[in-house]
Order: sequence, then structure tokens, then C-alpha cells
Amino acid sequence: MAAPELEHLIALLAKLPSLGPRSARRAVLSLLGQKETQFAPLVAAMQTVLEKVKTCPVCGNLDTITPCAVCSDSTRLNHQICVVQDVADLWAIERTGVFKGQYHVLGGLLSALDGIGPDELNIQSLLEKTEANKNCEIIFALPTTVEGQTTAHYLSDKLANSLCSISTLSRGVPVGGELDYLDDGTLQMAFKARRSL
Amino acid sequence: MAAPELEHLIALLAKLPSLGPRSARRAVLSLLGQKETQFAPLVAAMQTVLEKVKTCPVCGNLDTITPCAVCSDSTRLNHQICVVQDVADLWAIERTGVFKGQYHVLGGLLSALDGIGPDELNIQSLLEKTEANKNCEIIFALPTTVEGQTTAHYLSDKLANSLCSISTLSRGVPVGGELDYLDDGTLQMAFKARRSL
Repeated sequence: MAAPELEHLIALLAKLPSLGPRSARRAVLSLLGQKETQFAPLVAAMQTVLEKVKTCPVCGNLDTITPCAVCSDSTRLNHQICVVQDVADLWAIERTGVFKGQYHVLGGLLSALDGIGPDELNIQSLLEKTEANKNCEIIFALPTTVEGQTTAHYLSDKLANSLCSISTLSRGVPVGGELDYLDDGTLQMAFKARRSL
Repeated sequence: MAAPELEHLIALLAKLPSLGPRSARRAVLSLLGQKETQFAPLVAAMQTVLEKVKTCPVCGNLDTITPCAVCSDSTRLNHQICVVQDVADLWAIERTGVFKGQYHVLGGLLSALDGIGPDELNIQSLLEKTEANKNCEIIFALPTTVEGQTTAHYLSDKLANSLCSISTLSRGVPVGGELDYLDDGTLQMAFKARRSL
């Protein structure tokens, strides 16, 4: 058996998503093979992130500054608020560079199965934002799963009395998508939402 | 884009075997979601392993004590030396509890493709061990790949003049193995090496 310190580290690493006991063991052995070039920099980087990265109190993004870089960027539009499920989706949209407004991270989706109700999500502060920020546009960038669409419906009900307009990302054929390989639901949706050229 | 500290950590994690940029990002977000229960203990465990775990100068195992727990265990047999490719294989054999002798970690396999020759491996110290320890048994626990068998041939040539006997792990049908699903080479090997009951 490996030393208890090693077994402890492997057990902790194995809890990460997309790692298991075997891949965690391989990762630790690979790190120990390159202590100076890989292991020490990784530990230092983790320490920095653990100490410095905080959740932005305004939008829910993760950043080393408070409010986060997006919220404190004065060149960004204040009247557009993009509602996302989690920080990963926020980063994905930021990588495209297509959106120049504010974000609001829900921190999950409504799910009866997982027992996640409105109180578990970051919804109240969204309602307060829309009251303060009249004539804004709320853009739902939520997954097109059952949970994502349930959440979108719930939110649009809650926002019905606000003075903000509500929109959602378009659905249709993905870029590079072969029609033959597409599921029926997406193809139907793309037909119904066809645009004139 | 995420903060530079986060991007740096994701890039370092993505270099680990069995992780890529996307799974590294998921891992970091999962850790940041459980700072106290997951992230801080993981950083502490990595720091401990980075500082304390050393390569054993005798056998090449990784442990917090020098020589390692296996080499300093006086109850283990000294006249059996099991030659393995790397520490992962040593740990795998130790988990079975079947072997009570000493180990010798080569640190890799001979590979013309990867440019790994005898000088890159921990071979010289094995030869010295066999000279000092006469009448020992050398057990090759090497993979049954081309590289593994090349290395075994090379080592048995080098050890031909020593007074040690040389053996290798048996090949055959794995426990729980269906004959129908076995490759032809293994089935042939299992037939040729059949034992009387």
C-alpha cells in the first residue's frame, strides 16, 4: 500500500468530477514525477485561487476582485442582464465575446427530483435588480433541458409584472450540424422558428 | 474570461493525465463550490505530499520515509526481487498481498520509439543488487506489451551471468475471463502453458 498521505491525497482527488480512484492515482504519480515543473506550480496556483477567488456579490461570478471584472467594467451595458445556470456557462458566453451586458448566476436550476426549489437559487436578488433597473432586457441563457425550461417558465412568471422585456436564446440547427444527425425535437423547432433570408 | 489566476490553475490541471481543459474547468468550479470541505483539504494534502514524499533510493518506490516502508520492513524476504515498470504497478502488487519480497522499480520500459534506452532506466542498480545478493530470485512483473517483453529480454541477457534465478508472471486466461472474448494470442499462450490438474 502507498503511504497514508498519498492514499489521502488520491482519495480527495478521486472526488473531483471526471476523476476516479484509478485516474487520481495516475495523476498523483505523474505529479510526483515532475515535482519542480508541475507539482509545485500546481500547489501554488491552488493556494492562490483558494485564498483569492471569491463569489461576486452582485452577479455570482467567481473572481479575485469584488465586484467581479464584469460587474466593475464601466464600458459594459447596464440594461441587459443575462441569466445563466452557473459560472461555467457565464465563462462560455464570455469566451464568445458576443454579449456586453451584465450577468446573473442562478447557482443551479429548479429540480423537483434533486429537491431544488426557488429558495435554493439566487432568484430574489434578480427580482430586486429588475425592480431597480427599469426598462432592461432579461436574457435567459438556460439549458434546453426540462429543468432549464421549468426554471425559465418560473422566472418569466415572476418577472411578468416588471417593466423589463424578457428574451431567450434561439434554438435551431447548431453551426456545423448535419440535419440527418439532429434529433426530431430540434429539427421541428428549427422549422417552426425559420427566418426569412 | 475567468480571472488569470483561475485560467492559470485550469491550464495546470489540464496537463494531468485523464484531464483536459473542459474537465479541469469543471474540477476547479466544483472545488470552489466546496471550499472548506474539499478545496482546503485537497491543497493541504497536496502540500504534505509535495514536501514529504520522496523516491526510495533502494527500490524506487515513493514514500514519506527513507528507505520506504517495504524496504525497511524486516519481515519481508530479501532473496526475492520483483522488477516492475513503475510505482503504480508496485502498488497494484502490494494491494494483492501476494508478494512478500523486495521490489525494484525500473522507472519505465525500453522503447526505441520513445528514445528510452538502458541508460534512462534504473538498470545498473538492479545488476549491483543481484551481484551483492547471490542465489536470489528475480521476478519480472512487466507488461506483456512489446516494450515490456523487450525490456524483460534485455534484463535476462544482462542477468544471465548472475547466480540468481529469473522468473516471470504467468500468462493465461484472466480470472472471470470468457474464452470467447479473449484475444487469440492469450488463448494460444494459455493452451501451450496448460497445467495438469
